[in-house]
Amino acid sequence: MRVLVLNGPNLNLLGSREPEIYGSESLDDIEAVLRDRAEQLGIELDFLQSNHEGALIDAIHEHGDWDGVILNPGALTHTSIALADALSATGLPAIEVPLSNVHAREPFRRHSYISPVVWGQIAGFGFRGYRAALHLLHQRWTERQAEGGSESGA
Amino acid sequence: MRVLVLNGPNLNLLGSREPEIYGSESLDDIEAVLRDRAEQLGIELDFLQSNHEGALIDAIHEHGDWDGVILNPGALTHTSIALADALSATGLPAIEVPLSNVHAREPFRRHSYISPVVWGQIAGFGFRGYRAALHLLHQRWTERQAEGGSESGA
Amino acid sequence: MRVLVLNGPNLNLLGSREPEIYGSESLDDIEAVLRDRAEQLGIELDFLQSNHEGALIDAIHEHGDWDGVILNPGALTHTSIALADALSATGLPAIEVPLSNVHAREPFRRHSYISPVVWGQIAGFGFRGYRAALHLLHQRWTERQAEGGSESGA
Amino acid sequence: MRVLVLNGPNLNLLGSREPEIYGSESLDDIEAVLRDRAEQLGIELDFLQSNHEGALIDAIHEHGDWDGVILNPGALTHTSIALADALSATGLPAIEVPLSNVHAREPFRRHSYISPVVWGQIAGFGFRGYRAALHLLHQRWTERQAEGGSESGA
Amino acid sequence: MRVLVLNGPNLNLLGSREPEIYGSESLDDIEAVLRDRAEQLGIELDFLQSNHEGALIDAIHEHGDWDGVILNPGALTHTSIALADALSATGLPAIEVPLSNVHAREPFRRHSYISPVVWGQIAGFGFRGYRAALHLLHQRWTERQAEGGSESGA
Amino acid sequence: MRVLVLNGPNLNLLGSREPEIYGSESLDDIEAVLRDRAEQLGIELDFLQSNHEGALIDAIHEHGDWDGVILNPGALTHTSIALADALSATGLPAIEVPLSNVHAREPFRRHSYISPVVWGQIAGFGFRGYRAALHLLHQRWTERQAEGGSESGA
Amino acid sequence: MRVLVLNGPNLNLLGSREPEIYGSESLDDIEAVLRDRAEQLGIELDFLQSNHEGALIDAIHEHGDWDGVILNPGALTHTSIALADALSATGLPAIEVPLSNVHAREPFRRHSYISPVVWGQIAGFGFRGYRAALHLLHQRWTERQAEGGSESGA
Amino acid sequence: MRVLVLNGPNLNLLGSREPEIYGSESLDDIEAVLRDRAEQLGIELDFLQSNHEGALIDAIHEHGDWDGVILNPGALTHTSIALADALSATGLPAIEVPLSNVHAREPFRRHSYISPVVWGQIAGFGFRGYRAALHLLHQRWTERQAEGGSESGA
Amino acid sequence: MRVLVLNGPNLNLLGSREPEIYGSESLDDIEAVLRDRAEQLGIELDFLQSNHEGALIDAIHEHGDWDGVILNPGALTHTSIALADALSATGLPAIEVPLSNVHAREPFRRHSYISPVVWGQIAGFGFRGYRAALHLLHQRWTERQAEGGSESGA
Amino acid sequence: MRVLVLNGPNLNLLGSREPEIYGSESLDDIEAVLRDRAEQLGIELDFLQSNHEGALIDAIHEHGDWDGVILNPGALTHTSIALADALSATGLPAIEVPLSNVHAREPFRRHSYISPVVWGQIAGFGFRGYRAALHLLHQRWTERQAEGGSESGA
Amino acid sequence: MRVLVLNGPNLNLLGSREPEIYGSESLDDIEAVLRDRAEQLGIELDFLQSNHEGALIDAIHEHGDWDGVILNPGALTHTSIALADALSATGLPAIEVPLSNVHAREPFRRHSYISPVVWGQIAGFGFRGYRAALHLLHQRWTERQAEGGSESGA
Amino acid sequence: MRVLVLNGPNLNLLGSREPEIYGSESLDDIEAVLRDRAEQLGIELDFLQSNHEGALIDAIHEHGDWDGVILNPGALTHTSIALADALSATGLPAIEVPLSNVHAREPFRRHSYISPVVWGQIAGFGFRGYRAALHLLHQRWTERQAEGGSESGA
Repeated sequence: MRVLVLNGPNLNLLGSREPEIYGSESLDDIEAVLRDRAEQLGIELDFLQSNHEGALIDAIHEHGDWDGVILNPGALTHTSIALADALSATGLPAIEVPLSNVHAREPFRRHSYISPVVWGQIAGFGFRGYRAALHLLHQRWTERQAEGGSESGA
Repeated sequence: MRVLVLNGPNLNLLGSREPEIYGSESLDDIEAVLRDRAEQLGIELDFLQSNHEGALIDAIHEHGDWDGVILNPGALTHTSIALADALSATGLPAIEVPLSNVHAREPFRRHSYISPVVWGQIAGFGFRGYRAALHLLHQRWTERQAEGGSESGA
Repeated sequence: MRVLVLNGPNLNLLGSREPEIYGSESLDDIEAVLRDRAEQLGIELDFLQSNHEGALIDAIHEHGDWDGVILNPGALTHTSIALADALSATGLPAIEVPLSNVHAREPFRRHSYISPVVWGQIAGFGFRGYRAALHLLHQRWTERQAEGGSESGA
Repeated sequence: MRVLVLNGPNLNLLGSREPEIYGSESLDDIEAVLRDRAEQLGIELDFLQSNHEGALIDAIHEHGDWDGVILNPGALTHTSIALADALSATGLPAIEVPLSNVHAREPFRRHSYISPVVWGQIAGFGFRGYRAALHLLHQRWTERQAEGGSESGA
Repeated sequence: MRVLVLNGPNLNLLGSREPEIYGSESLDDIEAVLRDRAEQLGIELDFLQSNHEGALIDAIHEHGDWDGVILNPGALTHTSIALADALSATGLPAIEVPLSNVHAREPFRRHSYISPVVWGQIAGFGFRGYRAALHLLHQRWTERQAEGGSESGA
Repeated sequence: MRVLVLNGPNLNLLGSREPEIYGSESLDDIEAVLRDRAEQLGIELDFLQSNHEGALIDAIHEHGDWDGVILNPGALTHTSIALADALSATGLPAIEVPLSNVHAREPFRRHSYISPVVWGQIAGFGFRGYRAALHLLHQRWTERQAEGGSESGA
Repeated sequence: MRVLVLNGPNLNLLGSREPEIYGSESLDDIEAVLRDRAEQLGIELDFLQSNHEGALIDAIHEHGDWDGVILNPGALTHTSIALADALSATGLPAIEVPLSNVHAREPFRRHSYISPVVWGQIAGFGFRGYRAALHLLHQRWTERQAEGGSESGA
Repeated sequence: MRVLVLNGPNLNLLGSREPEIYGSESLDDIEAVLRDRAEQLGIELDFLQSNHEGALIDAIHEHGDWDGVILNPGALTHTSIALADALSATGLPAIEVPLSNVHAREPFRRHSYISPVVWGQIAGFGFRGYRAALHLLHQRWTERQAEGGSESGA
Repeated sequence: MRVLVLNGPNLNLLGSREPEIYGSESLDDIEAVLRDRAEQLGIELDFLQSNHEGALIDAIHEHGDWDGVILNPGALTHTSIALADALSATGLPAIEVPLSNVHAREPFRRHSYISPVVWGQIAGFGFRGYRAALHLLHQRWTERQAEGGSESGA
Repeated sequence: MRVLVLNGPNLNLLGSREPEIYGSESLDDIEAVLRDRAEQLGIELDFLQSNHEGALIDAIHEHGDWDGVILNPGALTHTSIALADALSATGLPAIEVPLSNVHAREPFRRHSYISPVVWGQIAGFGFRGYRAALHLLHQRWTERQAEGGSESGA
Repeated sequence: MRVLVLNGPNLNLLGSREPEIYGSESLDDIEAVLRDRAEQLGIELDFLQSNHEGALIDAIHEHGDWDGVILNPGALTHTSIALADALSATGLPAIEVPLSNVHAREPFRRHSYISPVVWGQIAGFGFRGYRAALHLLHQRWTERQAEGGSESGA
Repeated sequence: MRVLVLNGPNLNLLGSREPEIYGSESLDDIEAVLRDRAEQLGIELDFLQSNHEGALIDAIHEHGDWDGVILNPGALTHTSIALADALSATGLPAIEVPLSNVHAREPFRRHSYISPVVWGQIAGFGFRGYRAALHLLHQRWTERQAEGGSESGA
């Protein structure tokens, strides 16, 4: 099983940027936690952060035949229809993991182009959300394997 | 540790109602899964479903000194400010667990009065969302216990 | 054939409340008219009024295997998504019977969560609307019986 | 008693146009049904369909001293203030009979300029709605006759 | 000097229709008043009422080389972009003369597609508005004649 | 003179819930203050709190022949048309007494279905508002008594 | 007969300010034209321009027992509810005379708080509008005098 | 203790202007009632009415070190941000006292720039509202005196 | 193959009306160009212009069994749901050909009831658009013929 | 060179009013800074503050032949079309200098009627903004002088 | 003649992505068709697809002196003002070619920042639209050449 | 002191693109002016233009420990939440310098995601705005240095 973990603009600043909102874990810390758990579950992991919308779309296309995406598109959540189209075009099962509870912040952060095209969201639990997402994708993949089905994109 | 699981209007029909959207598990199935897991984690569980907004509010008040709430308010999510006020008044850490991805349905299901007053949401994963919520509340409680703090309501 | 007749908040005041708008028939009068007609058509009738949204939803669930619903949800028409969900969850063929022509009153009375999930509306004809609804449900049921089909909920 | 039956744009296509929405009866079928019933009730009937807004308004003016109007303005329902003004200017008691449940279709079909100026609506029951409207107008007329009153327009 | 006077849907009912709003003068009365005044001023008058939007547009086209239009489009004021386009296409100087003060009535009567393409409006003075409009068009025409200019359409 | 005092959802938590907003008086304290004052003025008092919309409506119906209502519907202020209908159906003179200045809080707390159907509002003065409301209802009742009139509902 | 002519902010600049929109007549020119005509008709005239909303309201109050108002409130048309209240409080028959066709300018100039409380508007004809307004008020006054009625404010 | 009572545009017409809405008491009557009560309570009173927004703002500044404001800004309630800024800049405890129940009137009267910056509102009780406001300000001042605190502006 | 070409209100003025926007070709010129091309392709052409919405709808119905429609509804594009219904009722493959780029003009010209029910739009190319539309319809028809299918309406 | 510096409602409270938002400089301090700098640049300065919209408009008219305006209209920025009209009528080059960054405050402070009619804005820099505005007006004037042009109003 | 063909985000997936909406041709197929046709017409073609908004803008700048652009910006159509600015800044004649009929899809796909700045749109015809666009640009260019004019950008 | 100067999409075309709006200075001219002034003030300058949102965000991150940013994000001002987040995440004091007065252009150019997160804006003065921004940042830095404080980001 292969899973892509995608982080959008400004998430490279995690840990140093407003820790009272986003937590004190850096993106490296989150990657370490996920790689550790992935190894236990036998999952191959690709981990990418970019401030470029185009680079995130390219990555989704390149992983179009993988088994799942965990993504936190940052501010692009609210503005990028292109990113949403990339997800629905490849048909990859995806989970959206905003770190903070976006529903309790500025109104423009409550609208998401991404939410309608993913399997589900896990919002507000900081780094724990990524870990829970990995488990949920793994459960789904295991169930599908058991049914003999396949659900990669492209 | 004590956790209240609250389900709102029409969720008693789960399993028989539009299974292609809500899954084929009944509410009894979900309760069984949760009780099993709760026993493993040493958690006391109260499980309530009601079609009455007032009964749900009463239940939150009565469990005001417990350690967490997992709730799926059903259609009240979109219309009940009173339910949201009950949660913020008691200060109970809560997780909202819509079964389906509400963001891909009718527009009026995208607005939630509950989301801004909970710790986070887990949306779209069917019965698996309840289980993940229980784990996240337990992790949080364990961390707080380790820090010697307390976070019950009232 | 079995039909549930459901009346929402404040309809117990019918006859005494603003008769120039709602007519001078009390809810008992309407029940009498309907029971009389139902007897002629061989229909079993359940007749309920409640000021509690939850009680109305409970009633719909309990009659989920009946053959039709005639309902006037009163002010809940405009605010209760939960009631609408109860109707679509059971799949009961339903007819909405507002007493007055809601289109000619305050703007907030023109929006209905109920209308999109019923078979049709009969609006503005006072108590005559209930009787016409009973006939239409009966015609439909007779046609379905003739076709050998069944259309009860649940 | 004299009643005008008015049908607006595209209703001449009835029967051949999307029968799953509008039913398989043609406008001639509906006219036959109504004339038959009208004869039984001793009602003189004028039956007109036109794709011209102006022709419909002319007809309402010319029948300003009749005893009722049954009308299905088709798409003009949503755009013609002039048609609505014609009805309120003559003061004719009118019933609006949309064939399909407009509330479950495109949003722009939910707004009606006609609804606020008619006696009532019968929506969603196909050709049956016309027949029910004729009966309701007749009942009203009979009651008024009994009271010795008169309610023709102009 | 030649002036077209145009009246839209339902204005043929003037005098009998809600006189407390529209006054007790019929359209014939208004025509007589205008013809009398026009004769004094040496103006040729064409006077047309129609319930057909198309007929009104045809008339504007046919009088495209006249010297002015006085028009009361009735309800088409609020819905007909085509009528407004006809006025701006011919370039005829026009005055809009609503009988009643539309600003004190239903909100949908406050929007006008016609107002932005006319020279000015005279609103609320009943039949007196037509007479004042004739004088204003005549003053303008006299001034233009004096300047040696010409302002007919087409 | 008989006055009903009605408190809606979550007001049973008064005193312990966010005292910096709602003050430190409990609902029992408020009841004591009011009963004391009522006794001085010779007023019979009924005092009810409920988290159930239906129970509040029932109470209004049951006190339909009393002389006034003081009510704080809590969050139902913003969502319950049914509660507003109950007030206007009984015709009881009512005063709305929000504890806090709702105009300085979340936007959704600024809209009230209740305000248009009451005699007036007293907002922002905490428990003092209830006492002022009792005085105002008493003044009105005394004036009406002096005029020989009666103003109970039903 | 006594008539107040009221001009609001910036109208003192008339003639020098954007003459292609507002015409080349100064406010003094307009006053001269009106005084000349008023003398012929035997009308006493008060003529005031102010950039102060309060001064305009004071003037309306002070002339509350006169026989009519011609007013061009300038930009206050779109922002001053207080000015509109002054007109409706005194009950003075008023005519609004915008110099330019406001319907063909910025959207915020299309909304008027004044229009709903006046007898009518004459818009777009420059200084000619004031003169026409004087005639219309005079005709009305003459008719009322003939009927023996009186219509001054206060 | 010193209290400023401020009344905005058109309130000088009170008593003669639409008494069925605003009551038959003049502003002088209200001043007399308040002065009488103030004397009993040992309060110095300044009483001002103006149709000029600027004069009202000046007055608030000049009384910046007094102990409270009772104000009815009339139509400025809905349009004057400057008046609201004056109140929040001085920090004076203020009570807003609309005479009528603004919530049951035109929509534009439901929005208030003043409400968010005052202590509370008393709306709908006519002249009685001013008297109740004086009592509430006095109670607050007495309580603060007892606590040894001070709350004047500036 | 048979194709209907339909032009709406004011298009008869083409060539003389604002040529910098609509081009200098008259409707006769466009007809000549199309007839020439149609002859080459072996297409029978019917060419109609009308200022009457009803006449356009009639024409669509009468050509319900033809093979395609090219239409420029003029201003009716933005206001006529009835015209759109005529198209979807007959199921005729249609192409909308606005002469100018409506997206760069007044906002109300950006909304089209016609667009959702046609095969496609060709906007902004003047008379060339008609010719391109004829080709596209011919290509589609040729392909369908080759596939042995049929796609006429009704 | 002559420059008018205009300050609107409540700016006389500068220094004492919410210094954390508006800074600790009083209006006198700002005037001193500007006069000092103006003297160096050889600029004649007029400096006015008023809480009256009318007085500000009067001042603009009276300085219509000066060389520039620096203005901070305070809350009138958001409500006064009349003030904006005064600026565009005189054609004076103007710079708007809000003290605080209005874009980070209440939504109603983000809309400005003034911004579209000035040369530019300098927002958020406190008293420093006035000084920068003086320099920019001086640069512009010097450049124009060099070009031999003139740009005063009226 | 030189023409740039620009394709935005996700269009590289063409052919494999939802073929029932976007057709079964890949972007390579479209390029082949266009290159073939371009060769016949003697046009030099540059063909670029990118998922990066910046890369698309760079390309437009670099081809600023070419003779035309055919572009399908994909989802950027609805979100990129920068792309639209690039087109209007270079002044290149451009044609927008959405593959599907965007007017019949999600509402957010109906708004286009690109449409107002291009020569025209061809929407809904799949790959045929590109070919038609090439022909239209060629015709325009040939006409301009014949007129001796030039219309390249920058 | 170190300052980053950032220019967004299409600003590389400055001088050649619509000079009547944006002025005739190229970006190189502006850089030269700024470098000259920076040298006088002893400021190190980094000057970057990019059409890629991601590149602009990267640059802000890389200069996170500098002393200020002057930025003109071009069209991204209105669409990029990610760019705004980059600014607030680093905490760099920033000044926004639109060349033209955006408030007098298309409505969509009046909304800015950037404005709420910068120190202030200088809008409408062309290249002069950059120079003024440099001075203001320098004054602020000098003042902070004098206070011994530090305000770099990260």
